[in-house]
Amino acid sequence: MGESPQTPPPAARRSKPGLVVLHTGDGKGKTTAALGLALRAIGHGYDVCMVQFIKGKWASGEHRAAEMLQGHLEIHPVGEGFTWDTKDRERDRQRVREGWELAMQKVATGRFRMLILDELLYVLSYDYFPVEEVLRFIDTRPPDLHLVLTGRNPPQVLVDAADLVTEMVSVKHPYQAGIKAQKGIEF
Amino acid sequence: MGESPQTPPPAARRSKPGLVVLHTGDGKGKTTAALGLALRAIGHGYDVCMVQFIKGKWASGEHRAAEMLQGHLEIHPVGEGFTWDTKDRERDRQRVREGWELAMQKVATGRFRMLILDELLYVLSYDYFPVEEVLRFIDTRPPDLHLVLTGRNPPQVLVDAADLVTEMVSVKHPYQAGIKAQKGIEF
Repeated sequence: MGESPQTPPPAARRSKPGLVVLHTGDGKGKTTAALGLALRAIGHGYDVCMVQFIKGKWASGEHRAAEMLQGHLEIHPVGEGFTWDTKDRERDRQRVREGWELAMQKVATGRFRMLILDELLYVLSYDYFPVEEVLRFIDTRPPDLHLVLTGRNPPQVLVDAADLVTEMVSVKHPYQAGIKAQKGIEF
Repeated sequence: MGESPQTPPPAARRSKPGLVVLHTGDGKGKTTAALGLALRAIGHGYDVCMVQFIKGKWASGEHRAAEMLQGHLEIHPVGEGFTWDTKDRERDRQRVREGWELAMQKVATGRFRMLILDELLYVLSYDYFPVEEVLRFIDTRPPDLHLVLTGRNPPQVLVDAADLVTEMVSVKHPYQAGIKAQKGIEF
């Protein structure tokens, strides 16, 4: 123990209405754990908005499930046409900017208690969006808004600003054993 | 590279209908990522059964959300009354056994394409249930059943038997900063 800070007793704990949560690492589970948080939040009567910065508009399992949740989960994929291959960085930046503005509009409605920015950390790590703007949003957002950011290689300033950071580490992946991506697991 | 096995080209990949997935580690996200997998699977038209071996019957977010998913997600908490405190190991073992039998009955209906055994790994690590029985189930289960196991300290034989293993590592936790557990995040 020695000089390590003492955990305060429960009575002294402060309630922080909205947390900043990061899911990072090279393993599976970053987006799926965000979807799990969404499901849990919806069960508490909250509405959740997810903007997906990499995924395109193809129908994956979560989009169809969102339709079943009676409007409590909105998922907006803005990554379609992402030009990782064509190297048109300006177009990519523009897409990220549009996704960000959409997220800000959604927050401004006051309807959502959780905002998930899926793969934004990855986008930030490639310098497609200024991290300063994310930090400014963290400081000025509605205090009861949970903000969940996923993706590899988060900038250290965001780790510092976050309340809860989990790294998903790949211990074993079926791809290594020559097994195809599975419906219901990978997408 | 040297002697490391080559990843087979996509054309050579085999399709394995049901995967064994482990979410382990000391970090958040093991159960939430399982819930995210459930949501995704439901979006593909599958039904999902989750048995929770530690959680009691108190209403948490996921239970209420499950009700919204029109019967496609069943969650059965069997941990209520778990006697970690009273040290009545026989009663604990009996509860785990009942949860296991319930799961087996659910699988036998043929209705589910995904079975989540939440915290079973933790239970196994405390020797409350024979791992051999889990291994036997893995070998004999319906081939298209995805099996998702969560919890800390998985027995190595289960890691060996699994197709996909992700370790959730706690990088930063709000408890360390004196912040209370938050509705919609922690439960």
